[in-house]
Amino acid sequence: MKNFTFFNPTKIIFGQGTIGALKNEIPAGKKIMLVYGGGSIKKNGTYDEIMRALEGRQVEEFSGVEPNPTYETMMKCVEKVKATGCDFLLAAGGGSVIDGTKFVAAAALFEGDPWKILKTFGSCVKKALPFASVLTLPATGSEMNSGSVITRAEFKAKLPFKSDLVYPVFSVLDPMKTYTLPAKQVANGVVDSFVHIVEQYLTQPAHAEVQDRFAEGLLHVLIEQGPLALKEPENYEVRSNLMFAATMALNGLIGCGVPQDWSTHMIGHELTALYGLDHAVTLAIVLPGNLTLRKQLKHDKLLQFAQRVWEIKSGNDEHKISEAIKKTSEFFESLGVKTRLGDYNLGEEAIEKVVAQLKSHQMIKLGENGDVNLEVSRQILELCL
Amino acid sequence: MKNFTFFNPTKIIFGQGTIGALKNEIPAGKKIMLVYGGGSIKKNGTYDEIMRALEGRQVEEFSGVEPNPTYETMMKCVEKVKATGCDFLLAAGGGSVIDGTKFVAAAALFEGDPWKILKTFGSCVKKALPFASVLTLPATGSEMNSGSVITRAEFKAKLPFKSDLVYPVFSVLDPMKTYTLPAKQVANGVVDSFVHIVEQYLTQPAHAEVQDRFAEGLLHVLIEQGPLALKEPENYEVRSNLMFAATMALNGLIGCGVPQDWSTHMIGHELTALYGLDHAVTLAIVLPGNLTLRKQLKHDKLLQFAQRVWEIKSGNDEHKISEAIKKTSEFFESLGVKTRLGDYNLGEEAIEKVVAQLKSHQMIKLGENGDVNLEVSRQILELCL
Repeated sequence: MKNFTFFNPTKIIFGQGTIGALKNEIPAGKKIMLVYGGGSIKKNGTYDEIMRALEGRQVEEFSGVEPNPTYETMMKCVEKVKATGCDFLLAAGGGSVIDGTKFVAAAALFEGDPWKILKTFGSCVKKALPFASVLTLPATGSEMNSGSVITRAEFKAKLPFKSDLVYPVFSVLDPMKTYTLPAKQVANGVVDSFVHIVEQYLTQPAHAEVQDRFAEGLLHVLIEQGPLALKEPENYEVRSNLMFAATMALNGLIGCGVPQDWSTHMIGHELTALYGLDHAVTLAIVLPGNLTLRKQLKHDKLLQFAQRVWEIKSGNDEHKISEAIKKTSEFFESLGVKTRLGDYNLGEEAIEKVVAQLKSHQMIKLGENGDVNLEVSRQILELCL
Repeated sequence: MKNFTFFNPTKIIFGQGTIGALKNEIPAGKKIMLVYGGGSIKKNGTYDEIMRALEGRQVEEFSGVEPNPTYETMMKCVEKVKATGCDFLLAAGGGSVIDGTKFVAAAALFEGDPWKILKTFGSCVKKALPFASVLTLPATGSEMNSGSVITRAEFKAKLPFKSDLVYPVFSVLDPMKTYTLPAKQVANGVVDSFVHIVEQYLTQPAHAEVQDRFAEGLLHVLIEQGPLALKEPENYEVRSNLMFAATMALNGLIGCGVPQDWSTHMIGHELTALYGLDHAVTLAIVLPGNLTLRKQLKHDKLLQFAQRVWEIKSGNDEHKISEAIKKTSEFFESLGVKTRLGDYNLGEEAIEKVVAQLKSHQMIKLGENGDVNLEVSRQILELCL
C-alpha cells in the first residue's frame, strides 16, 4: 500500500424525511443561495421541502444549471452571489448542480480570472464559501468529495478541479427523492458509479486488501441493485443502497493508497464536450475498449475482478479476463446504456477530433502509469467503434 | 436501512515515515502534552521520531497510561494539563492511550466533577481540547472515532463515553511502528477488530448492502492477514492491511443505518474490571456463547456470515450457523487467544459477580433489541464456561 492521507469532513445526513435537517444544519444568520437545475426539484417535492425547512431564512435562488455545468452559466451564479451578498450556498440536484456549486463557492471568493481555477485544476484555490447539498441523483459522488468538473462551452473544454476547500459541509441524501428519476438517469448513475470504482480498482495490485474488498463490495451492490432500481422504482431499500454505494464509490476511501487510472474519464470528457453525450454514456463506451487494450498491464487486477466480482470460475486466466470485460459491457447494455460509438452515430472521424481535444488539454499522459499517450488513447477509441 | 448521520472529520495520515507530519499538522503556537503508556514508544523509536518532528515546540509529557486506562491515572494527567497550560494533546500508543487522552481532552475543560462525563456516557461534554494521535497498536479504532472507555479502579467500573468533540484532529498510522509489538498484542488487536465488526454486522438484516459488504470485506482481511502478521512480523503490507482494517472496523462507517449489538463488549468490560483480563480476551470468551445463545434472533445474518465470510457451502442452515460460530472460536484460538472462562481459571462464581456488576452499571437492556437482560447475560456466560 502506498502512503496516503484520507480526510473527508462532509457530514452525511441519510434517509427519508431528512431534508428538514437543513433548518438546524445551516448556521443561523447565513444568507443562502439555493442553486438548482431545470426544475425537477419542483416536480418531485424537493423544492417545497427545502423551502419549508428554510422558512424565515434569507434565501436567494439560482436555477438553470445544465447537465455538464458550464463555466458560462456558473459565472452568472457567481455574479448573483456577489450581488446579493449570499454567504452560504445550497446545491439541490445531482452531480452537475453540486459540481457547479463547488465552482461558484471557489470563484465567488477568487481574486483574478476564475478560469484559472480550472486551468490549475484547483491548486490556486485559497478560500471558498461554505456550501451544502441536497442530493436527488446518485451517481457522481460529488456530495461527499472535493472534486468538480466544469465545461467551458466556448472552448469545448471539460476540465476537472479539486480542492480541500470545496467539500460540502453536509449533504442530505433522501432516497425517496430519487423515485421520480427517469430510467435513463438511474441507469447512467449506476454506470457512472461503476466506472468510478473501476478507475480506482482495476490498475495494478498494491496489496491494499481493505480497499480492494470495499471496491468489490460496491461493485456487487451496483450489479445487484442497479437492475432492481429500474424494475422497482419505488423500492426504498434498493434506492437507499444505490444512493449510499454511489457516495462511497467516490469519497476518497477506496482510492486510499492505490494507483488510480481515470483515463476512461478523461477521454470520455472530450466526447461529452464535442458531441454532448451523457457523461455515463461516454464511460460505458470507453471503458471496455480501454480495459481490452491495456489488459496485459492490468492483468492481475482484471483476473481478481473476474473471480471476485463476476465470479467466473472456469477457463484460463485470459478467458476469465475477456469474460469479465464482456460481462461489464453486457451489464451496461442491460441497463439500457449502449456501449459503442456507432450506437451514437459516431465513427472514425470522431476519434481524430477527440485526440486533438486531448492534445489541446494536455491530456497526454493519462492512466495509472502516465502511459496513456495520444496514440494509446487513439487505439482505445478504435476499439470503441 | 435506517436513517443515519455519518460524520468523521479525523484526518488519517497513513504510511511509513509519516510521523514527521506532526511538524506541520499541529498548529503553531500550541503547547503540547504528549501522553503515552509504559514506554514501549521509547523502545521502538516512536518517541524519538515524535520529538524530532516537534523540535523547537513546547512539549510536556505524561506517561504511565495503563492498559484499560483508569480514571485515577487520567485525572493526574488532567491536573498536569491544567498546571502546565497545555492546549493540544498528542496521544502516542494504542487504544488505551488514545481513549485516556480523549477523556483528558474532555475533562480538562469540564466544569464540575469529571466523573459525570462517564456517568452520562459523554452527553454532558460541551467542549474539549483538540488532540491528535500516533497509533502504535491497531485494535480499537479509537484513532478515528469519538468513543472512549475508562476504568475507575476504586469502583471496579469500566464505562464508555462518546462525543463528537473528541474525534482526533488527525491520526498518524505508520505500520512499521507495529513491527515490535508482542505477538499477544497483535492477536488481541485482530480479535478486538473482529468483534467490533461483528457487533455491527451480526444483528438483524437491515437491507444495508454496502455496510454488509464492507463488514464482510474487513472480516476477510482480518482472517487472511491476522495469522500472517504473527508469522511475518516485519511484512509491511500485512501490517498495513491490519492497521487500516482495524481503523475502518470502528470509524462509524459500517455501523451506519444498521442495528448494533455491543452486548459482548458490555459483558466483557465487566470481566476486565473484575479480573483484569485483556479486553480482547473477554471478547473472545463472550462472543461465541453470545452468538450461540441468540442464534435464532440472529439467524439470517449468521447464515450470511457463514456463507459469505467463512464460505461454508454444505449442510443445512443450522449446520452452517454452528460451523460459522465454531470457526470463529477456532480462528481466535489459532491466534493464541483462548476462548473459555475456564482457560483463565474462572468458573461459576465469576458469572454471579459479572451479573451483579452489570446490574450496578444499569447494563440491563443490552443488545440490538435491548433484550439482553441480566438473565440473558447470565445464560450467555454459562455457555462461556
